[in-house]
Amino acid sequence: MKETGLEVDMARRWWLAASAGGTAAGLAGWSPASFAQAKPLPPVASFKDAGRVTVHSASGVETLRSAFGSSSITDIDVLFLRNNLGAPDASIVANPDAWQVQIDGVTSPRALTVADLKRIGIANVAMVLQCSGNGRGFFAHKAAGSQWKVGAAGNTLWSGAPLKDVVAALGGVREGMRFMTSSGGETIPPGVDPQKVMVERSVPWTAMEDAILAWEPNGKPIPLAHGGPLRLIIPGYYGVNNIKYVKRIAFTTAETSANIQKSGYRVRDIGKKGDPTQPTMWEMNLKSFVTGPAGGETLRAGMVQVHGVAFTGGSPIRGVDVSVDGGKTWQTAELFGPHMGRYAWRQFVAKVNLPPGSYLITSRAIAVDGSVQPEQRVENERGYAHNGWRDHAVKVTVT
Amino acid sequence: MKETGLEVDMARRWWLAASAGGTAAGLAGWSPASFAQAKPLPPVASFKDAGRVTVHSASGVETLRSAFGSSSITDIDVLFLRNNLGAPDASIVANPDAWQVQIDGVTSPRALTVADLKRIGIANVAMVLQCSGNGRGFFAHKAAGSQWKVGAAGNTLWSGAPLKDVVAALGGVREGMRFMTSSGGETIPPGVDPQKVMVERSVPWTAMEDAILAWEPNGKPIPLAHGGPLRLIIPGYYGVNNIKYVKRIAFTTAETSANIQKSGYRVRDIGKKGDPTQPTMWEMNLKSFVTGPAGGETLRAGMVQVHGVAFTGGSPIRGVDVSVDGGKTWQTAELFGPHMGRYAWRQFVAKVNLPPGSYLITSRAIAVDGSVQPEQRVENERGYAHNGWRDHAVKVTVT
Repeated sequence: MKETGLEVDMARRWWLAASAGGTAAGLAGWSPASFAQAKPLPPVASFKDAGRVTVHSASGVETLRSAFGSSSITDIDVLFLRNNLGAPDASIVANPDAWQVQIDGVTSPRALTVADLKRIGIANVAMVLQCSGNGRGFFAHKAAGSQWKVGAAGNTLWSGAPLKDVVAALGGVREGMRFMTSSGGETIPPGVDPQKVMVERSVPWTAMEDAILAWEPNGKPIPLAHGGPLRLIIPGYYGVNNIKYVKRIAFTTAETSANIQKSGYRVRDIGKKGDPTQPTMWEMNLKSFVTGPAGGETLRAGMVQVHGVAFTGGSPIRGVDVSVDGGKTWQTAELFGPHMGRYAWRQFVAKVNLPPGSYLITSRAIAVDGSVQPEQRVENERGYAHNGWRDHAVKVTVT
Repeated sequence: MKETGLEVDMARRWWLAASAGGTAAGLAGWSPASFAQAKPLPPVASFKDAGRVTVHSASGVETLRSAFGSSSITDIDVLFLRNNLGAPDASIVANPDAWQVQIDGVTSPRALTVADLKRIGIANVAMVLQCSGNGRGFFAHKAAGSQWKVGAAGNTLWSGAPLKDVVAALGGVREGMRFMTSSGGETIPPGVDPQKVMVERSVPWTAMEDAILAWEPNGKPIPLAHGGPLRLIIPGYYGVNNIKYVKRIAFTTAETSANIQKSGYRVRDIGKKGDPTQPTMWEMNLKSFVTGPAGGETLRAGMVQVHGVAFTGGSPIRGVDVSVDGGKTWQTAELFGPHMGRYAWRQFVAKVNLPPGSYLITSRAIAVDGSVQPEQRVENERGYAHNGWRDHAVKVTVT
């Protein structure tokens, strides 16, 4: 699903209309001055901290590298936003407990409200939410879509009902099911073929094991922009699988035929079209990046704390190396901060003494299974899954 | 230091003036309607989520029990607020890196800016911030001060420079020092004896070991209301010791003679005045409380997830028991969510089947050293340190 397609055209029209009209909720504070300097926050994300994000489009807001700070979680006020369709009407978050999700492909299929879910079980998991295209902005072939650098990712705490408890309460998954197929509650614009735009993703059914039907990120009721009142959270999987306004979860024998699964989010060579034979964006790969210095600064000579974050959807993080000479030499960083589980990111810091000069500072993560974050990106049409450490380096000048 | 004293009278006058004037920053959105229903948020805390807090006064805002939700951290938008003096001018958070803190009682005393601190070291710690008077509202003798129930506490992640690294960089603590005495940057109103109102607290100097000079709670620059641009964080210690706008840290031979240390925050029998011979509010005791159900609800019969939080400034949490009959019988709860270290709170949940009837639901925490959260409060003049499980119970009706 190219972002140049129909669904994004519609979002763009809505955004331009909102920008011009100024009567929609959330427009307070927009001024000609902010228009002149940068794109305005989309109304659905008007609560974001405009000074700490980059607005790519009506459906894409990125955390500035400097806005990650040195904390182990990402503030929701700067967490990236990426919506494949416009958000549903805000009325759905007014009474969150009434939202319904249909569970199918289990022994006793039924609809459950959020209030029902809260009586079935409670969990809380720290996990990295990352867009498939995070790092797209580093590809040389100008891959279509938001030109994310590092900030289409964030470490967040999600609380909700464990999906496995919900499924157990309904008698378990029916025999022969191979996928968990989940559908979002976005409104399909009239006259548009739902297959082309609907947000419906299939993942291996075993992903149910750690999944959560979530109502709170970082201790807050989920804002509409981030999928409230109920979002499917699949720790370790790319963002697109974490279905917003989730209205149905079905265990199925086949993957959905929705375009977002069939041809969208497929990794293929540059110039090729997407098809179901290609790998789809499921588990995240091993990645790290420096968040401080954030790049572009001029620092005075002396000791500097080079810090950042490391994460993966696979084998857990064992350690991180840091280089200040663009990867010629490396030193071992120290992991710090609370260890919030295998799906969270770990923070790392390396104390380095920098005499005057120019530096290219980067990091590479090492997993428990011995795998190492690669140097280079893997070229692909849509600019997905970029974890090469070379492109993620920051330049600083020391005087 | 009684809240009926001079410093709070001044805060109250400021608050009433702000309420009437309406020209100060942060007053947007105040309306006669919100006045009629509840006290308005103080301007310095105008960013709080008014629907999820109770406003006690211009210097006291409490998290509603229901607002803790089921997440392991507390949203800054609902985190309690308790200020002993009005906040300094907001200009101090405009350029946070320029704020200075003087370090004394070390081999090489000097002033350091926040920018300097960021080059010395970086840490991130999850810790419970709790007001000494949390639970005061349960005392029968109407102890003076905000009538906090459970919500003058929150679990927060603080990032900053480890104080021990800062002290090491300055040659270490001078010999013979027994206390760490820290001073807040609040403005002392003209004509008032500083001794009577200044926020300056002494703790054992060894508390330095885990302390942080912090610039970020939960991934956000510290708002002025919570002590920005720099706050001393002493994990495991009651809130008052976590000095806001910290401008000086001195290792000293004696405790400060400021009233807030000498006579304020002293635990003594009802009717007695505070003096330095009485215990002061340093390490927090073992405590837990239920956050869901939040109390007062009518629930339908069936399975309910009784959940809450447990924490301590001493021996770590080993487990939590839950009772639905006011403490006659107990069942073991399950700990869940990320384990964020000994100073964070742990979440617990117990699945209980409730037939129609009335229930008194509470919890008691057990520490690794075998100590158990007590049933009763310890009566004391100011209503400090309440951790008795009986008063913290919630009533629910099941139909």
